[in-house]
Amino acid sequence: MSSILSHSIDEYIKMVTSFHGYPAPGVLIGGFMVDLAYTKLPKDGLYEVICETAKCLPDAIQLLTPCSTGNQRLKVIDTGRYAFTLYEKRSGEGVRVYLDWTLLDEWPEIKGWFLKLTPKEAQDEGVLIREIKEAGSDICGMEKVQVKLDSLNKRKKSSISICPSCNEAYRTSDGALCPACKGSVLPYGRMSKTPSKRHKSA
Amino acid sequence: MSSILSHSIDEYIKMVTSFHGYPAPGVLIGGFMVDLAYTKLPKDGLYEVICETAKCLPDAIQLLTPCSTGNQRLKVIDTGRYAFTLYEKRSGEGVRVYLDWTLLDEWPEIKGWFLKLTPKEAQDEGVLIREIKEAGSDICGMEKVQVKLDSLNKRKKSSISICPSCNEAYRTSDGALCPACKGSVLPYGRMSKTPSKRHKSA
Repeated sequence: MSSILSHSIDEYIKMVTSFHGYPAPGVLIGGFMVDLAYTKLPKDGLYEVICETAKCLPDAIQLLTPCSTGNQRLKVIDTGRYAFTLYEKRSGEGVRVYLDWTLLDEWPEIKGWFLKLTPKEAQDEGVLIREIKEAGSDICGMEKVQVKLDSLNKRKKSSISICPSCNEAYRTSDGALCPACKGSVLPYGRMSKTPSKRHKSA
Repeated sequence: MSSILSHSIDEYIKMVTSFHGYPAPGVLIGGFMVDLAYTKLPKDGLYEVICETAKCLPDAIQLLTPCSTGNQRLKVIDTGRYAFTLYEKRSGEGVRVYLDWTLLDEWPEIKGWFLKLTPKEAQDEGVLIREIKEAGSDICGMEKVQVKLDSLNKRKKSSISICPSCNEAYRTSDGALCPACKGSVLPYGRMSKTPSKRHKSA
């Protein structure tokens, strides 16, 4: 494989290093997976993604599709499988692409890494990256899927209320208190609430 | 405000447009929030983020910090509040920055947008963006927090198994079947599983 969408492999590796912190094998393979998905979809669709793992793959999707965590067109439903579904948001038609372990016998370094058969200290990163570049999307499976749009549990629009406990704005539909004050969902306690007007000199 | 970290405002708006799809007000404000958080933290920390909303703010964090969804240094715990906590991952010390609605009286367009007091069709986007640029981080509050690291429920490392139902790789620690085959967590059915070796001609 010599390119990922409109990018050369080396360009893509630079993008991954900048965004993800390092050229993680999973994000590199994810690039070929996204490239493969687009070959089977009309160019003019309005796409969203369901990603089945929180590890690495979401960053390939964010770098190569218009879908991001913050624009809420990328949703992670963590099944632990290295797979995502790219689908047209109005019709629900899409493709699911996954890393297919049954195709890895030709690529022993990828197989040892993906199935955790090779201990980290015994992995040869250079060989791993070379195998990933050579394999491209040949190690991926793909299937058509029909996303059930009404089961996506998209949050309904809500007006905004001020929480009487923390005095911050939140969705009225969440009830009389914001979710943070209702239950201990956050893993921290407040130490000192700096008066907002004075944060510059605090 | 004339800059966001090392970027001019206009540079940052271009980054947001490219990554998020358009210069969303929430991502612009998020930029000033991240800038403010960094003023209070040592430069050499190894940081992670808990973001309290899935809307817009995660993209400001991904653009301006080393934390992303795919490298798992950004975690969304959706309380609906427009806030995030940037903390040092080994000590748990950090700051929580939030958009403070009590400071919005001087910025009527931001107030109308943030508290959903102004209907969408009555919003003046030009005025809104101008107010956001002028206000910078003056509309944000900040507080010190101590993150309880042991309550973050980080997933333990697991070996990999092959699911006897779907024949895909998943975390052994998830049980005898992968989470997708165990329950109906995914909003789609499979239509046709293209034999992997032949996807190019399928």
